[in-house]
Amino acid sequence: MIVNVNNLSEQTIRLESQTETAVVIDQRRLPFELVKVSVNDWRDMRAAIADMVVRGAPLIGVSAAAAVALATKEGCDDKFLVEAAENIKAARPTAVNLAWAVERMMRVLLDTPERERKCAAWAEAQEILDEDLRMSRGIAEAFCGMIEERYRESGRTVHIMTHCNAGWLATVDWGTATAGIYEAFNRGIPVKVYASETRPRLQGTLTAWELRRHGVDVTLITDNAAGILLQSGAVDMVIAGADRIAANGDTANKVGTYLKALAARDNGVPFYIAAPYSTFDWSMASGREIPIEERSADEVRRIAGTDDSGSVSQVLITDADQPVFNPGFDVTPNRLICGFVTEQGYFPTESLAQLREKQHGK
Amino acid sequence: MIVNVNNLSEQTIRLESQTETAVVIDQRRLPFELVKVSVNDWRDMRAAIADMVVRGAPLIGVSAAAAVALATKEGCDDKFLVEAAENIKAARPTAVNLAWAVERMMRVLLDTPERERKCAAWAEAQEILDEDLRMSRGIAEAFCGMIEERYRESGRTVHIMTHCNAGWLATVDWGTATAGIYEAFNRGIPVKVYASETRPRLQGTLTAWELRRHGVDVTLITDNAAGILLQSGAVDMVIAGADRIAANGDTANKVGTYLKALAARDNGVPFYIAAPYSTFDWSMASGREIPIEERSADEVRRIAGTDDSGSVSQVLITDADQPVFNPGFDVTPNRLICGFVTEQGYFPTESLAQLREKQHGK
Repeated sequence: MIVNVNNLSEQTIRLESQTETAVVIDQRRLPFELVKVSVNDWRDMRAAIADMVVRGAPLIGVSAAAAVALATKEGCDDKFLVEAAENIKAARPTAVNLAWAVERMMRVLLDTPERERKCAAWAEAQEILDEDLRMSRGIAEAFCGMIEERYRESGRTVHIMTHCNAGWLATVDWGTATAGIYEAFNRGIPVKVYASETRPRLQGTLTAWELRRHGVDVTLITDNAAGILLQSGAVDMVIAGADRIAANGDTANKVGTYLKALAARDNGVPFYIAAPYSTFDWSMASGREIPIEERSADEVRRIAGTDDSGSVSQVLITDADQPVFNPGFDVTPNRLICGFVTEQGYFPTESLAQLREKQHGK
Repeated sequence: MIVNVNNLSEQTIRLESQTETAVVIDQRRLPFELVKVSVNDWRDMRAAIADMVVRGAPLIGVSAAAAVALATKEGCDDKFLVEAAENIKAARPTAVNLAWAVERMMRVLLDTPERERKCAAWAEAQEILDEDLRMSRGIAEAFCGMIEERYRESGRTVHIMTHCNAGWLATVDWGTATAGIYEAFNRGIPVKVYASETRPRLQGTLTAWELRRHGVDVTLITDNAAGILLQSGAVDMVIAGADRIAANGDTANKVGTYLKALAARDNGVPFYIAAPYSTFDWSMASGREIPIEERSADEVRRIAGTDDSGSVSQVLITDADQPVFNPGFDVTPNRLICGFVTEQGYFPTESLAQLREKQHGK
């Protein structure tokens, strides 16, 4: 493992098949404290996904696989597993990796004799985890090449804007949007990152936190500051992750991504999506079909941080009963996206059909 | 006075020439507590402008006039007043109303015999305050007409998105962007407002606070949610205030305004600026020349709200030494602005030259 946070080189999730436990980082306590929790029950893992103890589309997929593996502690018959799987899939509606991982687990399990299912479940979950590691490595290679090319052209530090946290913390390791940044940094290519804070849940502060601890130069901005920064010419490229990508390239990602893509286009700055194959939902023709999760009003009304004594606490920024509209995601139209950085390389938006063929040919 | 907050119909600033005092609301304590402070010294009023005790371009103008009036307590000779005026003008660099009000005060004072200057200063400051009231009334009439027209066309509640606080609190009364909304509400035209919170300082929560207390239906959103809301077709028009408008219509306003204008344009929703004449800076050919204030990193790193006990406190959302880029404003290019709502009526962007002639002809 390469991402080196607080001198701990480690993964965000670890599966222990012998003790039938998954160990995850409680991301709700970051960037304030690094706390790990052992999850022993599938319902607790479902709650961890719904409550964003774990977050980020790839990590949600691995966690959902772990939830199915944990469910085999309680029962291995078809009826129970199918019900548990449906329940797990409903934890969050927008991330396609969640359904993808659960369905993949279920295909394996329903094809396996009942008494071998527990063992098969942990093996398949570990395989999904390992594939996530390979995915991040593949994206790292592809995007690092693009950063390096830019550096060779300009001879200057490459300035990259990100949104939300498509980082180490959103995957098993390395990240998606950040993977190539870590790789470039490790190879000595000068990079500087602008991380937008990403209200309401401020996952951009997680991006700043993890990049900074690895030694990467990172400046935090409000989401509002992305426009003037792109106007100023200070940014060479924008890269974001994705929660679901429709067949035409329309991309659902953390709310606010669309505004950055608009500002990038308006200023001639390339805008990229970094995402694994599993994020593409070829069954959806366009972004119009992607369901958008609406989350609780208190995510907007209240903000968590550390108080003067260093304890994590929340402040209320408005009336406690102020009406709020809080969509978790937005959809960036394909016309604003230059291309997709995947574990199979870079695909310009107009060549998405090739990626589809490649994936289906596998 | 019409804006009726907590059943107190009142202005945001009051001048008391007999006691040589200005009374203002400490807006840093809103929306948590409504606290008024008496300001007796010109340096304190300058600090109140710099520290955003008072904020909003029009109110900054009136407060700056009050600061000059307060300076006459300390001296009325040319040298002292010119120095004090320069000092007051430097309190915040972007708002043109600040320089405009100070220069207007100084033209009057330098033309007045020294012993009459104190009296003239308070009279002129009160005149600037009264003009601000008339300005808001004029904008209210013009924009209410536009809301009413929209209502007559659609027969449905008119949905209006705002940014920052160009409200009652940003002026002496009524506001600029909100003035027409209050007027429409008072006349019984159904309106609903989406107020974006406006990080870093969350002035959008002030907009929600004041509109709600007057009875207007207002929903708070994060700045990031503006894009998906505009995509959804739920918004009929966007209106923002301005801190400085160049001769070609390029408009400096609170950071993030540009992103809303981009998203409005991308979805065919009209985007308007509400601003008094005094916000137009005909000496600047385009927005490129407008100086943009960069504010302290702690505005981004820390967020104020009320804690569990109801006291106002701050939380730290990132490392205490996290590098930050914090521009106070951005410039929205004229091509994204449909037109300007002023006290002299509505001027489509392409007819700005007429407004200039009208103003110069006065």
